[in-house]
Amino acid sequence: MTYCIGLLVDAGLVMIADTRTNAGVDNISRYRKLHVLADAPDRLVLCATAGNLSLSQLALATLAEGLPGGEGEAPRTMAGVPSLFRAAALVGEAVAAARGRLAPGLEAEGVHAGISLLVGGRIGEEPLRLFLVYEAGNFIECQADQPFLAIGDTKYGKPILDRTMTTGTALDEAVKIGLISFDSTMRSNLSVGRPLDLVAVPSDRGEPTIHRRIEADDGYFNDLSARWSMLLNEVRATIPPPPFMQPTG
Amino acid sequence: MTYCIGLLVDAGLVMIADTRTNAGVDNISRYRKLHVLADAPDRLVLCATAGNLSLSQLALATLAEGLPGGEGEAPRTMAGVPSLFRAAALVGEAVAAARGRLAPGLEAEGVHAGISLLVGGRIGEEPLRLFLVYEAGNFIECQADQPFLAIGDTKYGKPILDRTMTTGTALDEAVKIGLISFDSTMRSNLSVGRPLDLVAVPSDRGEPTIHRRIEADDGYFNDLSARWSMLLNEVRATIPPPPFMQPTG
Repeated sequence: MTYCIGLLVDAGLVMIADTRTNAGVDNISRYRKLHVLADAPDRLVLCATAGNLSLSQLALATLAEGLPGGEGEAPRTMAGVPSLFRAAALVGEAVAAARGRLAPGLEAEGVHAGISLLVGGRIGEEPLRLFLVYEAGNFIECQADQPFLAIGDTKYGKPILDRTMTTGTALDEAVKIGLISFDSTMRSNLSVGRPLDLVAVPSDRGEPTIHRRIEADDGYFNDLSARWSMLLNEVRATIPPPPFMQPTG
Repeated sequence: MTYCIGLLVDAGLVMIADTRTNAGVDNISRYRKLHVLADAPDRLVLCATAGNLSLSQLALATLAEGLPGGEGEAPRTMAGVPSLFRAAALVGEAVAAARGRLAPGLEAEGVHAGISLLVGGRIGEEPLRLFLVYEAGNFIECQADQPFLAIGDTKYGKPILDRTMTTGTALDEAVKIGLISFDSTMRSNLSVGRPLDLVAVPSDRGEPTIHRRIEADDGYFNDLSARWSMLLNEVRATIPPPPFMQPTG
């Protein structure tokens, strides 16, 4: 399995992905799932992938080569799209093309040809944006009412996001919440695992984008995980016991 | 969907189930999913159900009528089983019989004939026990290493159980943790909803079993939900920010 999240707050964009892939529990590998599709002065396009690895690799390779342009035109790549909306559309097109080639063969073998992707970043003067691309190539955009999107095994990590994420959350706080969400997921699902890849993009163009790989021995993450467990138990103890469980004397 | 949990600690057994059923999002009903299969001086058998409602109703009706006995023998019911292990086996037999009758028709209509059940309680002098019965009629028993079992949409509520439940957890604390787990699930999944049915059985046979229905206006639950949200955010704020997000200035 996989867990990838994108958090879009006023202060910036955070994308985090794990690196564990498995074909059965005895065939576990490590693959990068968070990719930089474009990084130039006028554009940053990040992409996280979940689902069948052969499909996502083919879709990304197709994007790198470029999709067919019009008669006599150059292939269409991330270098040429004018907005992140059009970047998400191009990713969707590449996904649909990859599925068209691979899905019949996969499904004949009983393998679900499923894939989903997060596409985040900004192009030109537009603000940071975040999209979720589905396997049919259709996509949705992250909105302020729920300032995050997730793909893969999204349920274990959702309660903490539901309760804490708002568009006003500071960028370093969003990174912390994202890591807590990963910690919850990894504790409950062994098929999601470190290292994690993390990119944090401040809305302020004067501040640097942060790329970070969080390894299995990352001191901050281990401390966060231990603190979170301890604090959850402390907090729980402060909630009064159910009155119907009290001795009625 | 459904969420049902059983928590088995040294101090007793807690079983909680929601009551929401849906056939599509526009056909939502309320059905009791936590059932008392036997309640007599020598036995208490509780059962929580998840999955196709027609299957679980047929399985429970089969159990109430009794499964066929041997030649010239009375039907086999919960009144006659000598242990909770045998109670779980009888539930499994009823599930297999119900699936045998309904599954071919359901699956011809493209409906998954899935069902799972929790069976908890005690019979005679044995300690409290808890089982999870799968749709094939096979079952597993709850063990001390993970003193809880869950059925239905189990992922949202699992992180809090994973972090807090031990066999040493007090019974009222287990009830509280169970309700927090439900609160997390209901917040993230609209198809799980109040009222909740709750039974708490103390290991001490001198103490009364508590049956409680937690309605949508339950003051304790509302307070617990509000406190938990507030406390999670307070706790999160006490964890240091990621060092790699600090200005390196």
